[in-house]
Amino acid sequence: MKTIVNLSAVAAVSLAAANAEPFRASLISVEKNLRVGALEISGKKITPQSPKWSVRKITLHGGKQEGVELVVVDNGKLQFTVVPTRGMGVLEAKLGDVRLGWHSPVKEVVHPRHINLQSRGGLGWLEGFNEWMVRCGLESNGHPGTDKFINNVGDEATMELTLHGKIANIPASEVEVVVDREPPYRISVRGRVDERMFYGPKLELWTEISTEPGSSEFRIADTITNRGAPEQEFEMLYHANYSSPLLEAGATFLAPVSRVIPFNDHAAKSVKDYAIYAAPKAGFIEQVYCLHPLADAQGRTVIVLANKARDRAVSMSFSVKELPYVTLWKNTASEGEGYVTGLEPGTNFPNNRRIERKLGRVPKLAPGASWSATIDYAIHTDAPSVSKIMERVAAIQRAKQPVIEEKSEKKD
Amino acid sequence: MKTIVNLSAVAAVSLAAANAEPFRASLISVEKNLRVGALEISGKKITPQSPKWSVRKITLHGGKQEGVELVVVDNGKLQFTVVPTRGMGVLEAKLGDVRLGWHSPVKEVVHPRHINLQSRGGLGWLEGFNEWMVRCGLESNGHPGTDKFINNVGDEATMELTLHGKIANIPASEVEVVVDREPPYRISVRGRVDERMFYGPKLELWTEISTEPGSSEFRIADTITNRGAPEQEFEMLYHANYSSPLLEAGATFLAPVSRVIPFNDHAAKSVKDYAIYAAPKAGFIEQVYCLHPLADAQGRTVIVLANKARDRAVSMSFSVKELPYVTLWKNTASEGEGYVTGLEPGTNFPNNRRIERKLGRVPKLAPGASWSATIDYAIHTDAPSVSKIMERVAAIQRAKQPVIEEKSEKKD
Amino acid sequence: MKTIVNLSAVAAVSLAAANAEPFRASLISVEKNLRVGALEISGKKITPQSPKWSVRKITLHGGKQEGVELVVVDNGKLQFTVVPTRGMGVLEAKLGDVRLGWHSPVKEVVHPRHINLQSRGGLGWLEGFNEWMVRCGLESNGHPGTDKFINNVGDEATMELTLHGKIANIPASEVEVVVDREPPYRISVRGRVDERMFYGPKLELWTEISTEPGSSEFRIADTITNRGAPEQEFEMLYHANYSSPLLEAGATFLAPVSRVIPFNDHAAKSVKDYAIYAAPKAGFIEQVYCLHPLADAQGRTVIVLANKARDRAVSMSFSVKELPYVTLWKNTASEGEGYVTGLEPGTNFPNNRRIERKLGRVPKLAPGASWSATIDYAIHTDAPSVSKIMERVAAIQRAKQPVIEEKSEKKD
Repeated sequence: MKTIVNLSAVAAVSLAAANAEPFRASLISVEKNLRVGALEISGKKITPQSPKWSVRKITLHGGKQEGVELVVVDNGKLQFTVVPTRGMGVLEAKLGDVRLGWHSPVKEVVHPRHINLQSRGGLGWLEGFNEWMVRCGLESNGHPGTDKFINNVGDEATMELTLHGKIANIPASEVEVVVDREPPYRISVRGRVDERMFYGPKLELWTEISTEPGSSEFRIADTITNRGAPEQEFEMLYHANYSSPLLEAGATFLAPVSRVIPFNDHAAKSVKDYAIYAAPKAGFIEQVYCLHPLADAQGRTVIVLANKARDRAVSMSFSVKELPYVTLWKNTASEGEGYVTGLEPGTNFPNNRRIERKLGRVPKLAPGASWSATIDYAIHTDAPSVSKIMERVAAIQRAKQPVIEEKSEKKD
Repeated sequence: MKTIVNLSAVAAVSLAAANAEPFRASLISVEKNLRVGALEISGKKITPQSPKWSVRKITLHGGKQEGVELVVVDNGKLQFTVVPTRGMGVLEAKLGDVRLGWHSPVKEVVHPRHINLQSRGGLGWLEGFNEWMVRCGLESNGHPGTDKFINNVGDEATMELTLHGKIANIPASEVEVVVDREPPYRISVRGRVDERMFYGPKLELWTEISTEPGSSEFRIADTITNRGAPEQEFEMLYHANYSSPLLEAGATFLAPVSRVIPFNDHAAKSVKDYAIYAAPKAGFIEQVYCLHPLADAQGRTVIVLANKARDRAVSMSFSVKELPYVTLWKNTASEGEGYVTGLEPGTNFPNNRRIERKLGRVPKLAPGASWSATIDYAIHTDAPSVSKIMERVAAIQRAKQPVIEEKSEKKD
Repeated sequence: MKTIVNLSAVAAVSLAAANAEPFRASLISVEKNLRVGALEISGKKITPQSPKWSVRKITLHGGKQEGVELVVVDNGKLQFTVVPTRGMGVLEAKLGDVRLGWHSPVKEVVHPRHINLQSRGGLGWLEGFNEWMVRCGLESNGHPGTDKFINNVGDEATMELTLHGKIANIPASEVEVVVDREPPYRISVRGRVDERMFYGPKLELWTEISTEPGSSEFRIADTITNRGAPEQEFEMLYHANYSSPLLEAGATFLAPVSRVIPFNDHAAKSVKDYAIYAAPKAGFIEQVYCLHPLADAQGRTVIVLANKARDRAVSMSFSVKELPYVTLWKNTASEGEGYVTGLEPGTNFPNNRRIERKLGRVPKLAPGASWSATIDYAIHTDAPSVSKIMERVAAIQRAKQPVIEEKSEKKD
């Protein structure tokens, strides 16, 4: 058992391995009974020939964030911060003057021990919600409310699902940094988060969040495996949230879509302007739209948030086979409440699982089976780059005219 | 990031500042990513000319108190212990043979991570209740039960409020010690506790608990600010609890009041003796009285708990504009159950917020607006001093004959 | 306040005491404000003349087990691991190729801070369930569901009891190692776990888990004391769980019993084979049997789990006056789900307390009164030893023919 790892020792061990073997450093490990409090790994030592990069592990102090752990990756151009303590979510990413993230009224990176998911009628999740990218799942995501399950005596019973499930409030069991010693020297933060219980789901998430030195792109590649014996439902939604500088009055959402359906009557009123953003407005009530993305010949789609001047944008590319649904969450409230929009590819829409099941959108995993999804994020920092990604959206859209529904789905 | 601060380093930095600038030492800070594990600050070094004083920071171990942090202030005569981990409550205060505090059946200073406010039908708060002074609030306080709120989709929904709200189980985000370098060398422990969430209240509490070297008095001065965009309800009640030596058979509660209303039918039976205390009695059921305090020309009132011999007492002075209601909680059960009385100035009475709102006793804060309250506590350790404070109560009371109601308020 | 204790210092202090005084080392103490992070005590130093033994204290890292503390006792032949953080449960015991324990789908030793007992309709306990022996209690155990209680205003109110109560998710307040300096050099891990609250139970558990160097037996001796003023109900059940190598197709449960009653209709279908185990089967629904054990002339009984070859077994001996009921839990599901059987002596059967009270099986403790129980565990590793313990069961059974009920008890 070790709680502090000396970098030179780590490096020594790793350098002793064959040069082609990637560099590996465990930061957190149940297997090895290990938690590294603080560590800095620099590219200069590990991959001297590559552009400079670094990975830092830090621990937070004070208030509700006491003991929360962060891993900060800097590829020399782009920085992102992974939160092992909160299910390997990503707190923020930055490239120059573009920050992926938002300004939540939740100011600390809240330790799960301070979250009671059941509080406030199942909305307790909102007391820790401030990440740029937070996963919603795995047993369920979406709205709180009653759903059925099989209890310990084999009977169908009811339980109160809580908003967006548990995964964001489960600390990672294994976290390691892996760096390729050969070009392009890919830097990965890998982590495992277990959503396991007796008489319940045994879902295992492995995530790899990676980038290359000097790149303006990074990738989240996840695999969920059913480690239980029975077939197991699951739901996954990647809740990526943006505020300034991308979100502003006149900012646009762009995505090739076959259908757009308002989530409820309130959203229905503004469905025609679903892709355009307004300035912050105190008391604004969220508007949510359910989108069916179109894909290119390779089955991939891309969704974009671009600023008003069209010279800053973020794009997210993924396979519609892996993530067939996109939820667009518009919450252009005041800065103090949280001026934010969420672009949320998922296996489902964020209705309560009871509804999603009825509408055929809750996937299942056979025993031992896995589901994988990869999202490539790119940050665009000039007009030509934004123009190019907008053209990619338009190219996919050409296949079909989008249908904009005026009413929400029939649910219960 | 630092977890241990060296006192001499702190002192050095602070002494380098202009002499008139107060001494400051951060003990906990989200801003600075700092948590000081243990520290002792002594007056000898900081204010060599003043009477002796000290401030110690310690961390508790074992059971449910593992990791709980305390700040112990000793002004040379009076000692009090602040609990940053439990919302800046005050565990106890002592002067000679008088201890402000009680002997709760809860024997440890319980870390909030072991409290589930929703357990036992919303009474989970009672698993950590043992402070001399615990704040009840901020979004709500009082009895558990259903109340309405506005949920994430802008609809009115219902939630189960839990007993006395969240603030006592939220760790402080910022804690600092501030000492004036000029007479009277006031020593303050300042702290910020955030009750913030997305789609919910954004209430910020700043508290300053302070005393002067050699004094038998100390002060709690609090400010609550609404950091949200909409108008925000709040409730605050200062639940100060006393056992021996002040509470005993024949001890008296004294306060200038215009009206006394029993909280329920049970309390109504004993309303005539509301101000007199009995000996411990196993199985005693709590009696609660709702008081409307009278004030002097400056708008201030004083409430007192005096022992039988009238030679030991505590007095609490405050503005009735800030704290217009006083709840008197008599729980003269056996020592093992908790022989205790609570003197509780507040913005409201401890009914469920649903009831308090209906009765017009739930204040609101406009966006950015603040509410402040100051309570001065004095410990009286001889008959003349007790006599003098009793006379102050009587002087204010002279303005009006109190009305003692025989029935409780009509509620639901 | 000390967080690390130097072994030599501990030993020195202890050796200075009279030789006949047992060796004592505090590992966790609220009283002394102490938490020992890591420590190894070896018999060589403490009792040089005895067969070798050791006690180690370790702290776990990663995932949901960050900060969980273990005490590992090795008597030179037998090892067992106590979990102070989880109410002094026992994670596993090992002797040669026999392991007492199971392979729960819960892979980490979960810190109570990650358990919400109320989740999943009161089944949150199952998110941490993986010990060999976990206590169920103290205020209540058994199935979740509504029961009555007396609330803070003295009224009868209802609360939702959660599965198997709180005790397994309360960290120990005092933990010490005590070793006799005289033959047979008994090694004990003693711990106190408090289930205390204001306006609720004040139950104190002291446990002593002990063995002798070189023995294949160990003992759990518990005392529960009512530290409250009113009479107090309590329930206690020792949930000891087994998988391979003892549990396998053809393994047998043996106990002298007067009556066997299936817990529900589902268990009733297989009541004739209640004592025989099948191979793992995916989707197997638990079968639970309620047993009334017979005792010998001294009032003691013994229950046994033996493998198919009858050359490996565990036996558990106890007084039927202390523990009058035995629950047999058969859960021969697949390995991934948890192939496991529980042998569970208790003060009651695991119905909701509401039902157990109605059926007269909820004991009460007068103020200050205690209840004690001792269970002796022996591990049998050859055919003669297994044969001998089976004969002991048979000898007690001879007194009476067991009644095997075909229907479950009438409950609500």
